[in-house]
Amino acid sequence: MISVDLSRTGTAADPELKEQILSIADDLFEGGQEMADWVGWPALVDQALVEEIRETAEYYRNKCSLFIVCGIGGSYLGAKAVIDIIGHQEGSPEVVFAGNSLCGEYHESVLRKMHSNITCLCVISKSGGTLEPTIAYQVFKQEMEKVYGEEELKKRICVITGPQASPLRVEAEERGFRIFEIPEGIGGRYSVLTPVGLLPIAVAGVDIGELVNGAVALSSRRYWAEEGFRYAAARFELMKTKTIEIFEYFSPRMVHLGEWLKQLCGESEGKEGKGIFPVSLLLSTDLHSMGQYLQEGRQIFFETVFDVEQWPDDIHIPDYEDGQAGGMTMNEVNRCVCESMILAHSKADIPIAVIRVPQADEYHVGQLIYFFEMTVAITGSLMGVDPFNQPGVEKYKQELKQLLAQKNRRA
Amino acid sequence: MISVDLSRTGTAADPELKEQILSIADDLFEGGQEMADWVGWPALVDQALVEEIRETAEYYRNKCSLFIVCGIGGSYLGAKAVIDIIGHQEGSPEVVFAGNSLCGEYHESVLRKMHSNITCLCVISKSGGTLEPTIAYQVFKQEMEKVYGEEELKKRICVITGPQASPLRVEAEERGFRIFEIPEGIGGRYSVLTPVGLLPIAVAGVDIGELVNGAVALSSRRYWAEEGFRYAAARFELMKTKTIEIFEYFSPRMVHLGEWLKQLCGESEGKEGKGIFPVSLLLSTDLHSMGQYLQEGRQIFFETVFDVEQWPDDIHIPDYEDGQAGGMTMNEVNRCVCESMILAHSKADIPIAVIRVPQADEYHVGQLIYFFEMTVAITGSLMGVDPFNQPGVEKYKQELKQLLAQKNRRA
Repeated sequence: MISVDLSRTGTAADPELKEQILSIADDLFEGGQEMADWVGWPALVDQALVEEIRETAEYYRNKCSLFIVCGIGGSYLGAKAVIDIIGHQEGSPEVVFAGNSLCGEYHESVLRKMHSNITCLCVISKSGGTLEPTIAYQVFKQEMEKVYGEEELKKRICVITGPQASPLRVEAEERGFRIFEIPEGIGGRYSVLTPVGLLPIAVAGVDIGELVNGAVALSSRRYWAEEGFRYAAARFELMKTKTIEIFEYFSPRMVHLGEWLKQLCGESEGKEGKGIFPVSLLLSTDLHSMGQYLQEGRQIFFETVFDVEQWPDDIHIPDYEDGQAGGMTMNEVNRCVCESMILAHSKADIPIAVIRVPQADEYHVGQLIYFFEMTVAITGSLMGVDPFNQPGVEKYKQELKQLLAQKNRRA
Repeated sequence: MISVDLSRTGTAADPELKEQILSIADDLFEGGQEMADWVGWPALVDQALVEEIRETAEYYRNKCSLFIVCGIGGSYLGAKAVIDIIGHQEGSPEVVFAGNSLCGEYHESVLRKMHSNITCLCVISKSGGTLEPTIAYQVFKQEMEKVYGEEELKKRICVITGPQASPLRVEAEERGFRIFEIPEGIGGRYSVLTPVGLLPIAVAGVDIGELVNGAVALSSRRYWAEEGFRYAAARFELMKTKTIEIFEYFSPRMVHLGEWLKQLCGESEGKEGKGIFPVSLLLSTDLHSMGQYLQEGRQIFFETVFDVEQWPDDIHIPDYEDGQAGGMTMNEVNRCVCESMILAHSKADIPIAVIRVPQADEYHVGQLIYFFEMTVAITGSLMGVDPFNQPGVEKYKQELKQLLAQKNRRA
């Protein structure tokens, strides 16, 4: 099991706060009336659906060497996070994420990749009209029409979208593309353990059964009453005096877990003028850029450090003159850096929570996902905001709609 | 020329602050006594040195297909930032940055790359003993010894280090490796326009003459008196009410400019309990994760947006049903997103500075580098800290030294 070390946070468990958290957790498990919007979320444990996703993924794994996923924000970050940590399994198609930027150069490079591969395409958009993935989907779909023809397209395109009738959904139904549904109540950032995340993850050869098992292991009232509530309580206490939470990890493979966490926290808690600003750092790399600020700058932050005890790959360091680390492996030195940083930052009175992860495998990553989804749902509720909505993201989109309409009128 | 639009920052130019800034700028240009530590910095315009670097780079360009640069923090971020924005020029060796993490898997992949390439190796460490680049350097050097033999190694290894006698320097002198010196007064984050940055950049085929020319174009008292002081003044004003500065750019090619900026600001200003916390976001990507927080979360930040008017590569968007963006290019849509976001955030009273960059070329990137180096040196001085030191970065290293000694004694 993952575990949380709060001994360096300077927080103490307040029994009243614990009661509040357990009451929220109960609502989350039972889907109380006032939380009707997102009651679908804890219903992730639908074994039949997991089996259906696994079979569909198996079909695409046999069908292609390149699986392009068009999605942005919550429609790709979770899947990318999991695949990066576990790694593409041997013999799997390359899973490529696109439509998460408007970078012409990047999408040109994916088009080139299509020329030397057999491609399947998956587009993920709850509304069915998100600009970036829609643009990328149109570019790749039109390319595939040329190469494979209409009949074959049905077998190669998969649409994951919400229940309402968007142009994306209507076209998919008319042309007979495979459709997976995103339940109405689930926002992108909470959707890793739905078809949104599970299909691309399974195509990469990662064991989604174990991923879900990890989540299920933490989905009991008992876990949250005995262990799970502690980090949520500490975060909520720390938010009263700090304005930034920094997620820190020691492997580039965890960068997208950091990106997913930033969305999960920022979008769930950052509203009504509230919220703790989420930041992520890749260490030891960023100790050589942000280390000075952390050690001696304005103390407006606390740290949540991921200490992963085992990674599959490693490299042996040769002996060298004056070499402190000669004869060790890189991962061993990395964990020493982690320990040293925690010591040095503790001496500077920086609150540090440590999440210990016994192994970088599916089961523990599934635990991490569920743990943080629950934690943020709890802290958001404690703060008095709705952790499941995101009203602010529409505002620039409204400006953009007007602007694009103007440009197209002019043209 | 790059230009700065401060109309949405809500700041007004204070004549007294302007005078203070000009007095600091004068000290920077003239290297006043009390700033003796870093007087070397504005002496970047040494044409003979630039020529020597260019010739050395030309030598390596002809000598290898893979140029590995081992360096961390300021010893690689600037060079990577420039090469990412401009792009490797055709016919150049691949410039690969390593020794900036302790990731075994990544360094294993570089070792594999060496097997199918002709390799030259460059290690950059001012102290000559930085842990991560030293480890990587030892790994790659020992591999090259096996492949090329002692005599050939001299022609293939380049060491960029400070003047003091470190094991790295002593070995390089004994074995006859090429050495470039990092002047004593220049910290890593201010070293892009010294051999530290210029050599790798030139090996990638980027025109370092134009890069330096861009910097020189802004290195006059007149520029800082008429134009340059304005952003520094606005930043300093905004720091009084905000705790975070967010750098925002609209191309993945600018991610490492963001990383370099975070080090430049964080390490220069984050000390004595002061400093504004630097963050960077890649848009439109991160509008789908951090957009909610920015729009409606706790208003503790201001934004510095990079609006690059021209990029070399682009992709045409096909027409599609209900498609707002059909018929446009991705870069055109990207700039519309930039404009829309600025409008939406302005309406939420978020202070926004916009840095307009006419073109993503060497000349304007050189301007950006010099502009931010000067700006941060000025604001750090205004804050009453020494923007050129970094006493805090040693603290975890002291813990690490003890820990590694313990581990090795145990082993």
